[in-house]
Amino acid sequence: MYTLVIYDITDNDVRMKIAQVCKEAGLVRIQKSAFLGVIDSQTRKGLEIKLRNILGSNKGNIQLFIICEADISYRKIIGQTLEYEEDENIVLL
Amino acid sequence: MYTLVIYDITDNDVRMKIAQVCKEAGLVRIQKSAFLGVIDSQTRKGLEIKLRNILGSNKGNIQLFIICEADISYRKIIGQTLEYEEDENIVLL
Repeated sequence: MYTLVIYDITDNDVRMKIAQVCKEAGLVRIQKSAFLGVIDSQTRKGLEIKLRNILGSNKGNIQLFIICEADISYRKIIGQTLEYEEDENIVLL
Repeated sequence: MYTLVIYDITDNDVRMKIAQVCKEAGLVRIQKSAFLGVIDSQTRKGLEIKLRNILGSNKGNIQLFIICEADISYRKIIGQTLEYEEDENIVLL
């Protein structure tokens, strides 16, 4: 099963922390505010808890989707892959 | 089947056009750059063509996912729903 995380966060620090825990969970950045990957359900549940803790009372919205292998095969990618250097800074959680 | 469209577009005009065709296809905005909804495969294929045409050679990345009903039930939403007035302007395609 694939896990897709998309987020809409205005605060730079919060956004970077979100990206960091997604990476640590084994997801790969596919857009500036979207991560995708195959992780087990325990890792996904742990990630969800971390995301809830990081967002806390900050303004923002994070959504997690589970997508099965059959459905992921229909994924369409339009345009080029962008680079996201500005969010690649190391963040201490 | 649900269709999820996420996009990463820097140009304001292009981004607004993307949002407009997603809305016209029957999808609902769930984040600043994400639309979700149940549409038939013909509408989805038409939407994909429109998205490709709008992006053209502009810089950006758009991804379409299909998510089955079983998987969508595992969707997790963290945080509040944001408002997106700045992209609600009418765009003439």
